[in-house]
Amino acid sequence: MSIIDLSPVPLTRDNFSGFGDVLEVNDAERILINEGTTERFHALAKLDVADRQGVGVLSIFRATARPRPIKIAMMERHPLGSQAFFPLANNRWLIVVSAAETPAPDNLKAFRARGDQGVQYAKNIWHHPLLIIEPSQDFLVVDRAGPGDNLEEIRFDDGAYARLFLPKS
Amino acid sequence: MSIIDLSPVPLTRDNFSGFGDVLEVNDAERILINEGTTERFHALAKLDVADRQGVGVLSIFRATARPRPIKIAMMERHPLGSQAFFPLANNRWLIVVSAAETPAPDNLKAFRARGDQGVQYAKNIWHHPLLIIEPSQDFLVVDRAGPGDNLEEIRFDDGAYARLFLPKS
Repeated sequence: MSIIDLSPVPLTRDNFSGFGDVLEVNDAERILINEGTTERFHALAKLDVADRQGVGVLSIFRATARPRPIKIAMMERHPLGSQAFFPLANNRWLIVVSAAETPAPDNLKAFRARGDQGVQYAKNIWHHPLLIIEPSQDFLVVDRAGPGDNLEEIRFDDGAYARLFLPKS
Repeated sequence: MSIIDLSPVPLTRDNFSGFGDVLEVNDAERILINEGTTERFHALAKLDVADRQGVGVLSIFRATARPRPIKIAMMERHPLGSQAFFPLANNRWLIVVSAAETPAPDNLKAFRARGDQGVQYAKNIWHHPLLIIEPSQDFLVVDRAGPGDNLEEIRFDDGAYARLFLPKS
């Protein structure tokens, strides 16, 4: 059984580019609207949910913290659509993804997101379910509803896992 | 020139049902996921953005407060798609809509939303651009991008307007 230690790196558009979109105002296209009272940081991500008559849906996920150290022993992906998460309270949170066809502890990447950063996982990107640092945190989630099986899960072989070390505050 | 005074009422699914969806956890379908660590309040709204090859896009709107009393002198609507707003800071905010074909000060309805409530305006519903109470507030916005003109605006005749009275805290 292999145990790997993972340290999250700060999330940026550059280091997340292979996995989807980072939703944040920094460096976004900015349009002044509503008689100058509102800045629109435009089209930070496009939804990709139309496969097989899918539609986009808005949900709220209420996450609770896992025991520490956080053990990453499985991953999931959505073969039919993108999935976006944005925190509704400005607390840091954690992201674990894999670019491998078969995720395993030694091919994971971990990111720490600020509380004003969301992400949209591209279709079919392996990621871990929600990981938070505070005891509880709500997220607005934009993903796909429709026909077909849109969830694949994989549990690592032989009880292998990665230990996720939390960022210092 | 007519001037009407408007007092916002608390936003509920019932009183907003003719205008779109209220995005909140209360009374929502609740699914326990992610090994019991996350509650999913599922499909609070479905996007309606597919007309004329439209796609959903995620943006951030940074609103600033208007001078008080807030004057409602115009309205807008999006004939090709729904538009959802969710506050990213837990501060109350304001909503003004009209069910009339031609909005005017005497056919407006005003709502006050909690900071943990979002809305999705249905396609073609007349509404006022973002109205906030705090000096500045960010919102995640989910609406349509694509071909065609998706914005209609109307300015009330003869300088008429409604005055929006803010809720007491």
